[in-house]
Amino acid sequence: MSICEILSVGTEILLGDILNTNCRFLSRALADMGISVLYHETVGDNEQRLADALERALGRSDIVITTGGLGPTPDDITRDVCTKAFGYELEFRPELARQIEDYFTRAGRKMADSNLRQAYAPKEATVFRNYNGTAPGLGMKKDGKCLVLLPGPPFEAEPMFRQSVVPFLEEYRTCTIVSHQVRTIGIGESTMAQIAGELLDGENPTVAPYCKTGEAYLRVSARAHNKEEADLLCAPVIEELKKRLGDYVYGIDVEGVEQAVVPLLKEANLTVATAESCTAGFIAKRITDVPGASAVFKHGIITYANEVKEKALGVSPETLALHGAVSEETAREMAQGVRKVTGADIGLSVTGFAGPDSDEEGKAPGLIYTALDAPGVTLCEKIETGRNDRDYNRFVAASRALNLLRRYLTSKPHQGG
Amino acid sequence: MSICEILSVGTEILLGDILNTNCRFLSRALADMGISVLYHETVGDNEQRLADALERALGRSDIVITTGGLGPTPDDITRDVCTKAFGYELEFRPELARQIEDYFTRAGRKMADSNLRQAYAPKEATVFRNYNGTAPGLGMKKDGKCLVLLPGPPFEAEPMFRQSVVPFLEEYRTCTIVSHQVRTIGIGESTMAQIAGELLDGENPTVAPYCKTGEAYLRVSARAHNKEEADLLCAPVIEELKKRLGDYVYGIDVEGVEQAVVPLLKEANLTVATAESCTAGFIAKRITDVPGASAVFKHGIITYANEVKEKALGVSPETLALHGAVSEETAREMAQGVRKVTGADIGLSVTGFAGPDSDEEGKAPGLIYTALDAPGVTLCEKIETGRNDRDYNRFVAASRALNLLRRYLTSKPHQGG
Repeated sequence: MSICEILSVGTEILLGDILNTNCRFLSRALADMGISVLYHETVGDNEQRLADALERALGRSDIVITTGGLGPTPDDITRDVCTKAFGYELEFRPELARQIEDYFTRAGRKMADSNLRQAYAPKEATVFRNYNGTAPGLGMKKDGKCLVLLPGPPFEAEPMFRQSVVPFLEEYRTCTIVSHQVRTIGIGESTMAQIAGELLDGENPTVAPYCKTGEAYLRVSARAHNKEEADLLCAPVIEELKKRLGDYVYGIDVEGVEQAVVPLLKEANLTVATAESCTAGFIAKRITDVPGASAVFKHGIITYANEVKEKALGVSPETLALHGAVSEETAREMAQGVRKVTGADIGLSVTGFAGPDSDEEGKAPGLIYTALDAPGVTLCEKIETGRNDRDYNRFVAASRALNLLRRYLTSKPHQGG
Repeated sequence: MSICEILSVGTEILLGDILNTNCRFLSRALADMGISVLYHETVGDNEQRLADALERALGRSDIVITTGGLGPTPDDITRDVCTKAFGYELEFRPELARQIEDYFTRAGRKMADSNLRQAYAPKEATVFRNYNGTAPGLGMKKDGKCLVLLPGPPFEAEPMFRQSVVPFLEEYRTCTIVSHQVRTIGIGESTMAQIAGELLDGENPTVAPYCKTGEAYLRVSARAHNKEEADLLCAPVIEELKKRLGDYVYGIDVEGVEQAVVPLLKEANLTVATAESCTAGFIAKRITDVPGASAVFKHGIITYANEVKEKALGVSPETLALHGAVSEETAREMAQGVRKVTGADIGLSVTGFAGPDSDEEGKAPGLIYTALDAPGVTLCEKIETGRNDRDYNRFVAASRALNLLRRYLTSKPHQGG
């Protein structure tokens, strides 16, 4: 199997001025072709360090993909260093000059003379046209080594890679790798891994645990000749993981628990209304992140102040006085109140302390109550994150509220349909 | 000057599963200490390749910072490989075991046995406590080489770096670089750069333009012996930029327009209530991202459905029928309605099409109206992003609504105080 590495060039990356998103995009695209990426390396706009890194890369890898350093200014050195490494010479290519002029015409701008510097390429190289900028990409193959040069800006590099470089690398494709994510919530990464047990030792598919803010997931990856075969390898492992992890699993290949909740609500033909204190609209925002959420979500009320909890939701002053705004009792009355006021099928509420610092009642940041009210049932869950991190606590509060809704929807016998 | 490199460990990075944001954060933080980062390298969870990369890194750099591979599972190998590279031995540290147990207690979870694996460290190493996870960080110095091990998750690595690693690296600091951001909204990056003009050519401080979702900002960076001197170099340039850019500037070193809005409301002793359709809680969420927002924000109403706009805000059925839900008229009535219903000093509304796809009325995604109602005045702004990108459109809609509020607050003669 061919080994590939990605060599990023740019002092701005080493200074932390920009985030290197090309590496991620390229890595994923190469993994999907069954090309192993074993190294990422970044060097600055320095000829010697780039030449050394390139020599090392060509020594240990079959395919080297560089990004960046193809611009029109003198500190853009990637093309020259790479051309030299392959023992080639640059020559002026009139068709490149025309393409660059074309680009400026389309963008309604005037070409700077310095841009003509970008019209030079070795005659042995394959040129990849850049429709979103002026720097052409280059591909060279010699003595079993393959070198691909891409421009730095992601909106230039990504389309060029998909359109021109994937076909250029087709001979290296060994297989198709397909990955699926088994997403869980309400369980830590290590406990999840313990439950997955010996499935983590599998070779095809492989299973690996990861964590995300307030969540954990398992990645199941299979390698096969084509997507269908790879999916067949993954399927029984995913089923087994779902069986072992039970209700902790909220979905496969979804980006958040809201992605599971909206289809469940649609399926059950139910609507939800939200009453939010500490999350202040974040639950509603996440529900409506899902296109088509308007079928199941119509109305939300943000009650950040106690008097609004009374006035807009009918939470009783006695409850607030006796138990405080952050209490199971208040959460329950908020969920009941929002269902009643809005006429939705389900009311979902959150109240809590996001932090920083404790509130006047002396309760700790990260103490959150979420409640759900539906015909015949009111559920409540208490969460203690143990963290004094406002963003984290609010994200987790929203996730756990959505998860309470998910568990209600998956456990109850559906009535609609 | 000391040379540093960042060695990231994790097959998930090489597979493109996660974006390597640690590199950027660390690079910027090190640049601010006057420490040169010359290389970023990433290898997978493979003992031999990690050992080789570590040897190479320690050969060419004075400081090597690793990220990732400190977890409790067998594929987490960074600590073991680094310990071996320094010729040290791991030993069980009871205080680390207690800290890990502490972490689980605070998080209200049960510790897995595998987590005890994280309580081992060489006795020569400095341990960096992890307040946001279980993996302790480690620092080792020997024979003029310095090795720092950080956990992979950014919310663990970043606070640990700021709190413990910066002091650990203090002897390598050569200067202090201070950067300030002049944040603007309502103007494009290139126009902003044009207005900044010759200030972009400065050497100390430097001024560089950047863009963010729906915004643009200028970064002013000065290098000096200490923070005070660097700040003195920045100050006149920031003042000049503020003068040239005028009302486009919403703040210095703030993370979003909501950070400017909350203090302005507090200062004027005014409250705002929100009526949100397409953003569905996102404006309220962003206002309440600011600690202490409860003094100025008490109540928000999310009216995702037309009938709720009528019922909860009193938008007239005629307006909805005649002009549609996404119209200046509806936005105005929403802002007026929410102010009336909630009794807040200011009502702020948004209605729009986030996309994907056009709505039944045939209006294009990215068409947004935001309105503000206050005693004696109703303002409205129309926005056309021209993009069919749901997340982008909702973010920009929230930003522009908050900016409408900011401009109202900065232009009106303050009454409270």
